[in-house]
Formats: sequence, C-alpha cells, structure tokens
Amino acid sequence: MKKQWFTCGTLLVISAAAPAQSSVTVFGVMDVSARYARNASGSLATVASGGNATSRFGVRGEENLGGGLIAGFWLESTVLGDNGGAVFWERRALASLAGPFGELRFGRDYTPAYRAFGASDPFGYLGVGALANGFNARSTTAIARAFGTNPTTVTRSNNSLQYLTPGGLNGFYSHVMIAPSEGSTGADGAYKNLGGRAGYAAGALDFSVYAETTKIAATGANFKQVGAAGFYNFGALKLSASVTRSEYLTSQHKNFLIGAIYSLGNSQFKASYSKVKQQGKNAAGASIDADGANAYALGYVYNLSKRTALYGTAARMVNSGKASYTVLGVPAGPTTSPSSAFELGIRHNF
Amino acid sequence: MKKQWFTCGTLLVISAAAPAQSSVTVFGVMDVSARYARNASGSLATVASGGNATSRFGVRGEENLGGGLIAGFWLESTVLGDNGGAVFWERRALASLAGPFGELRFGRDYTPAYRAFGASDPFGYLGVGALANGFNARSTTAIARAFGTNPTTVTRSNNSLQYLTPGGLNGFYSHVMIAPSEGSTGADGAYKNLGGRAGYAAGALDFSVYAETTKIAATGANFKQVGAAGFYNFGALKLSASVTRSEYLTSQHKNFLIGAIYSLGNSQFKASYSKVKQQGKNAAGASIDADGANAYALGYVYNLSKRTALYGTAARMVNSGKASYTVLGVPAGPTTSPSSAFELGIRHNF
Amino acid sequence: MKKQWFTCGTLLVISAAAPAQSSVTVFGVMDVSARYARNASGSLATVASGGNATSRFGVRGEENLGGGLIAGFWLESTVLGDNGGAVFWERRALASLAGPFGELRFGRDYTPAYRAFGASDPFGYLGVGALANGFNARSTTAIARAFGTNPTTVTRSNNSLQYLTPGGLNGFYSHVMIAPSEGSTGADGAYKNLGGRAGYAAGALDFSVYAETTKIAATGANFKQVGAAGFYNFGALKLSASVTRSEYLTSQHKNFLIGAIYSLGNSQFKASYSKVKQQGKNAAGASIDADGANAYALGYVYNLSKRTALYGTAARMVNSGKASYTVLGVPAGPTTSPSSAFELGIRHNF
Repeated sequence: MKKQWFTCGTLLVISAAAPAQSSVTVFGVMDVSARYARNASGSLATVASGGNATSRFGVRGEENLGGGLIAGFWLESTVLGDNGGAVFWERRALASLAGPFGELRFGRDYTPAYRAFGASDPFGYLGVGALANGFNARSTTAIARAFGTNPTTVTRSNNSLQYLTPGGLNGFYSHVMIAPSEGSTGADGAYKNLGGRAGYAAGALDFSVYAETTKIAATGANFKQVGAAGFYNFGALKLSASVTRSEYLTSQHKNFLIGAIYSLGNSQFKASYSKVKQQGKNAAGASIDADGANAYALGYVYNLSKRTALYGTAARMVNSGKASYTVLGVPAGPTTSPSSAFELGIRHNF
Repeated sequence: MKKQWFTCGTLLVISAAAPAQSSVTVFGVMDVSARYARNASGSLATVASGGNATSRFGVRGEENLGGGLIAGFWLESTVLGDNGGAVFWERRALASLAGPFGELRFGRDYTPAYRAFGASDPFGYLGVGALANGFNARSTTAIARAFGTNPTTVTRSNNSLQYLTPGGLNGFYSHVMIAPSEGSTGADGAYKNLGGRAGYAAGALDFSVYAETTKIAATGANFKQVGAAGFYNFGALKLSASVTRSEYLTSQHKNFLIGAIYSLGNSQFKASYSKVKQQGKNAAGASIDADGANAYALGYVYNLSKRTALYGTAARMVNSGKASYTVLGVPAGPTTSPSSAFELGIRHNF
Repeated sequence: MKKQWFTCGTLLVISAAAPAQSSVTVFGVMDVSARYARNASGSLATVASGGNATSRFGVRGEENLGGGLIAGFWLESTVLGDNGGAVFWERRALASLAGPFGELRFGRDYTPAYRAFGASDPFGYLGVGALANGFNARSTTAIARAFGTNPTTVTRSNNSLQYLTPGGLNGFYSHVMIAPSEGSTGADGAYKNLGGRAGYAAGALDFSVYAETTKIAATGANFKQVGAAGFYNFGALKLSASVTRSEYLTSQHKNFLIGAIYSLGNSQFKASYSKVKQQGKNAAGASIDADGANAYALGYVYNLSKRTALYGTAARMVNSGKASYTVLGVPAGPTTSPSSAFELGIRHNF
C-alpha cells in the first residue's frame, strides 16, 4: 500500500495504516479531458471535466458508537475541473446511523433506481460514451417532459429519508427512499419522491430490480421508472446489463444497455451498447413510436497507479425517427443527425 | 477520550491527543430532521437541516506567535444538510490576533448583541422552537421594516473590526464591533454597524447587557437594539433569560425569553417560553400596540456519544392582535393563526 | 521549524516533518485590512480582503508514480475575508502530470503572461498599490473594450492545456497554454486563448518574455498582449521591472513597472512606480494618445512569524488626459481625478 500524507501548509502529518474506528476523510477526484465531438452541425473541441470519474471534492466520516452502531456523514460536491466551477454539496449531503438493523440516511443522496442502472454502465454514467446520453433531457422524452433540461431526481433526491438492509441476509438486499414534497414549486417543493430497489448479490453476481415514482408539483402527474440491472464477473471480464422503462403523461421510453469491462494488468478495456426506444405520444400529440437511438462506446484506461489513470473513450450515437439524442459535447444544431465524440484525459483521486 | 483519525482518500493518519501550540482544524456538523408543522392553512412535512445545531463545514486554526500573541483564522459556512446547499463562508470569516491586551478580529462574525441573546436560548436560536421565531422578519415588525426578509445584521455583520477584552478582569468582559458602511446599497454597503456588550461571568453566573445600532443606507435611519441576557447553572439545571428591545422608525418590539436545560446522564431536557410584544405603529401608520406572540418549546436530546445525538423538539406559537409570527416550517397562509411543529433528528459533529 | 498540527473537531493529529512522496495539503490565507481611499468624490473607509495576499482556501496534492512521474492536482478559491464570500474554485483547478519531459496541466490556471508581469509587482498584483490598478477594466482601454468589467483571461484561463519545460535546461524555461473556444458566448465559449512565455532564470536573475492572444467570440477580434518582465536579487534588495503592451481593435496601452523589496530582519519595505500610456482611438473614434496614468506605492510588512504578518500600504495614482484609472477602494465618481489610498491589515497563512 502506498503511503500518503495529509499536510497543512508546507508542514507534514505522519500517516500510517491504522485500524480506524472513527474517521473523517477529505477526498476528491480531478479528472480533465480534451474532447472532440461532431455531428451534422460541425465539430467542437473542448476541455471537459469528468470523462472517467466525476471531478469532486468531499468530506466524509464515521464514528463507532459501540453496540454495533455507527454514525456517519457524507458531504460531496462536483468540481468542474476544466473551469473551476463548483456547486456545494450537490452530489451528496447526508447524516446516517447504521447498526445491526441496517442503515438510515437523512439528506440528499442517489435514488435507489440510479444506484442500479447507473452501476450497470461500464463508463460510470459519464463522459462521451455514457448511458446518460440516452437518459438526458435534451430530447422530447418522458424525462424531458417531466424535468425540463435538468432531470434532477433521475439520479439524486433532496430531502430524502432512506433505509438500507444490513448484510447477512443470504445475499438479499433492499433499499427504499422517500422524500416529501415541501409544499411549493421551488427546488425542494417540485418533487415528491418514492423509490425502492431489491436485489441479490453473492459471489460474482449482483442483480436488482427497482421502481421509482416522482410526483411533479407543476402538473400533479407522476414520473415513473421501473427496471432491472445486474452484472456478473467472469474473472477478468465483467459483463453488465440493464433495462429501464420511464413514463410521464403520454410519453414512454425504454433504455437498454449491455456493457463489458476487461482488466489486464494496469489496463482496462471497456465497451457498451445502449439503445433507447420511445413509445406513445409527445406533448403535441404526435406518435413517437418510431423514435429511438443506438449508441456505441469503446474505452481504454491505463492505471499509472491506484490513484491516477490516463484514459481514452470513443462513442457514436445514431437516432431513428425524429429522436434527437447525442453524445456529449457536440455543437448545437440538427440533433437528429448521428453524432460522434472522442476524448483523452487524466484522472487523479485524492 | 475517543480517538479520531483524519484520513485522506482511503489512507489513514495516526491521531493522538498532543499538546497543540499551532493547529488547523477541519470541522463541521451534519444535522438533519424530519419536521411536521401545521397552522390554519394545513400541515407540511419536510426534511430539514439544523434542528439541534446548524449543519456546517469549516476550517479554523491558530498559531502561537510567542510572547503571549496568538494569530488565528476562522472560516465557517452553513450546509443545508437536507438538500446539499451551501453559502461559503457566510457563518464566519475572520482573521484574529490575540494577546495579553485581548483579541482583535477582522472580518465577518456574530454581533455582540446576538452573542448574548442567542446564547440565552436553550434551543440555540434554531429549529422549530427557536427564539429566532420571534425575531424573524416574516412579521411586519421593526426588524422586517429595517431588513426585509433577511435580518442579516441581527445575527452577523460583514466587514467588522472587533475588540474583545482578555480574561482576568475579575470576571468582567466586554466586546465591541464596528463595521463601516461601504458606500453603496449592495450587500456590504447597506449597513453600517456599531455594537457592544459588557458582562460579568464568574462561577455559575454569566450576565451581560448589549446595544447595537445599524444604519440602513436605503433610508438613512437607524435600527437599534438594546437588551440584557444571562444564565445561571444550578448543577444539572441551567436557567437562562433575556430581554431585547428592537426599534426602527415608528415600530418597536420587545422579545422576552426564559429557558431551562436539565442534564441527566446522556439525556438533556429543554424548555423555553418566549414572548414578543410590539409597540408603536406599522409602516401604514396603524397602531401595533395590541400585537404580539407567545411561544412555547419542549425538547429532548439523547447523546449517543460526545459527537452524535438524536433529538426531538415540539413547539407552539400563538399570536395576539394582528401579529403573524409562526414556528418554523409551516405552510404559507393565514399566519395570524396559532402554529405548531414537531421534529425528530440526528446530529453528528465532525 | 515550527510544528503545526492538523486536527479534526477537537481531537489532534500528530504532525512531523516527514519526507512526503505523496501528499494532500489543505491550505489557505486569511488577509483582512482596514482601507481608506479618497478621490475628488470624497473618501471611503472599508474593511477589505487581500491587501497583502489574496485570502484563499485550497486543497492540493501530488503522488509520486515512480520513474520520475508525478501526478498532481490543485483546487484553490478566493475567500472574501471581510464578508465571507467565496467562488469555488475560481483561482486554480487543474490536474497535472510531471516527469523528465516537463509538466502537463489540464484545467483552469494562470496565463503564462500573467505569471511574468504579475510576479514583477512587489505588491503581488493586489491591494491599494497593485500593478492591477493600471490593468483593470474600469478605464476605457483595450482591456475594458475586450473584456468589459471582468478582464478574466488577463490573469487566468478556463479549459486550458499547458506545457511547462522541465528544469535542467541551463536556466532556460518555457511555458505554453492553449484553451479552445467552446463554441458559445458563455463563460467557457467567449474566449479562445493561446499564450506562451520563454525565460532564463539563474542565480539572482529571472527574466522572461511573453505573448498572448485571446479571440473574443462576441466580435471575432483578438485581444493581444506582449511583454517582458524580470527581477534581480541584490542580497536583501530585490529589484523588478516589467513592460506589457495590450491591444484590442483600435486601442492600445503600455504598462510599465519598476519595483523594489528590501528585507531587513522581520521587516520588508516595498516600493513601486508604474505608468500606463494609452495609444490609438477609443470606441467612439477619439484619440487616446494623451491618456495615461502614473502610480506610486509604498509598503511595509512586519512578519510576526513565517505564517503571520501585519502590513501597511499607501498608494497614489494620477491620470493624464481623459484617463480614469484609480487606486483600489475609492468612491464612485469623477475618476479622472487623482486618487489615494492607505490600508493596514493582518495576513495569516494556513
């Protein structure tokens, strides 16, 4: 294990691998890439943040209270590694109490559904090849109709209370989240969230099903997601798959993904194929049954150490019908056209 | 003393109780509660931050310069533990120099008046039962007329210079703060602040009087506060009381509080009674002499450790005349009605 | 060497001067001053942040990857020490990879030109006597026409890729930066930046020349800077000088500086003379050949320790023609008048 010192100013603190019963951890990721993307509008070169892992800054900790009880907290915010932007602490902000009964969490956290389908993506739901490209709100889909351009509760929820089952249930696990509507249409009032996930993880297999309902205050209607996701480790090869159905008013879409990660020494090879299939009608009442997209992504990661990696990712997304999905980073314009992107980056964990 | 390790990433730093002459401390609180409040408009369930202690993230430190001189700094910001929001470093941001002469502070800090009346509240001026409910600007009071909905300099002041007396003055202490108007109506220009506090603390007693004047740039008029606050420790029982008179233009109000904290093992029992009495005329020239409110709060805190606690608080506030004070967390609506609230939370210090 | 402990909450972490191969550092500066400035409009007293060094909070680190390779990151944000404001992480946000080949940086950082002319200012490009007073955009200069009131890429650039030469080139060094335009007029799209610096540093001498071009998306025109800067250490006396020519559309200006720092025990005496000379025409087509300014600054710093200092700075700036440069902190008004300012502050590094 490599040693790492925590220092203040130019003066050093001795580090060592001690058994920690209580701890506070300052942690983060800086991940910056050079990205090139093109569609029918032309091409765009950018310097981007978070092609391999979201750049972030956080503080987390736990305290062993005795009797099997553990109190904890987690504060984590995105860093825009390319331009220094930050939104504190929008990734996670929670207090927790864990024990033989399981774990209770209070605050902002990932939804149970996202924990399942996000984990199925070999590209971690980010970068040019992300499964997120088929979930994003830039197209006139159920997600776009429900959330506009910021599909916030698709990945995280404010004001949530959560329960997660403890280990030792013969591999079965479950996770439920509830977040009240806070009575207005502001950031905390717009969405009332209820979601759950049930799964089985043992040996090489991890599989779960999930469902989530978000009541949108502006319309009173519910955005609904159901799905299943899992992965299996064949030694150096990890295969994953997920299918998620999203519905809001008259629009539905299904997102399919199959992915693979092959590890060889310090190298990782990644591939994914994902598909979106829309159904129903758009807000104007026209059929969207012919709309959808296919996306392909290939990636390579070279780990310089456990903390630092260089990576490259290539991705392509092709629409059918009038769908307008794109890979990340393309110029604005006729987004029903196919789009492609490539990025090269460096990721450093601290 | 429990041990706590500071870690970076997944690697650990040995901790110990060493005599620190110079230090930098990363610290914080995560406090999240489930809150239920109702008034004549109905009820509202929310997940809230800071029911027992304000959720926060901070860095502070000091350096022993020799000769009795100590340089220090303090940066502290609120964390909205329920949704991850943050406003850096709006709680405190200061540099300081302390010595046998006392302490000088430069930057943003609590006002001398708030240090006295805020400390008299068993509920720490926050949560559903806070003394703050009678100071807030939601009612058409002197504070609301002076500051609108954000009574900023009632608790803290930007751009302040402060002097605090040293210890060893036979229990007597004093604290003065001055903050210049910075010449515009922006955040730093709107308020010119001058305040002071003088007190006596010895044995079980701490008592002080305070006065503060804030010149409001928009009108040129002064918002004025005078008051007295104190507490006395009868062993396990701590009693506190305060009275503060606020005045702006034709409106005045007095805020009274008596409070108690009883400690028994890991438990704390809290109670407070507070009263607001308005006087004079509102902005429209109508008498507000009949307006006021009575508020009651009961609380229980169970300390799972020195750092972690579970707590519950219940509060009720009843208006007289046309006053519209409420406990925290109620739905919008006819706020002259009585209001009640209850919250259950977890608080973790780091 | 003074010892410093890093602590969490009230518990301590042992510190020591250990040889760090990998480290993460939490660091910062709190610098607050009382400032008095006047011009023909009157005078203004303020409490200000960053008179001697920019108040800041940051986290940085590096990891030795072996084979001479070092991965690193740097996150740094300004703290407004007087009122607690902050903009994360707008000072620097980058990932880096260094080795025998030199150093690559990805993210937000200082421009090569600023590294040279900024370092030539004895006052660190900040406070009432800063060289920045002659670069700021409050006057109708090339910089103001190109950037409005926020001359962002004059000091830093978003989305940059950089290469810095390694040591051991017989004292010669070079540094190039490129930042793509990101295809819109937003914060990241408005500016396409290309800059470089070449210099020689050996013994007491450091000298470099630099050039930078920023393509402004709004007009398609280029803002251009070229210059030379350097310093020489005569034992306790350090002399510095720089000249920078800035050009945009029909407006040009040259900024000259000569500066000195004399160190005596714990004291530092500072002085600078700077001059701005405009050329060409303003946006209305009128000649600006007669416009310019002369600025004088004197400073004293008393180091209470390596980390803490008290300081005072006095500055005066006198315009010629219709130029409207001012020292920092003056009231709004007839800015063609001469302006003067004085500040007294405390700076604490952590």
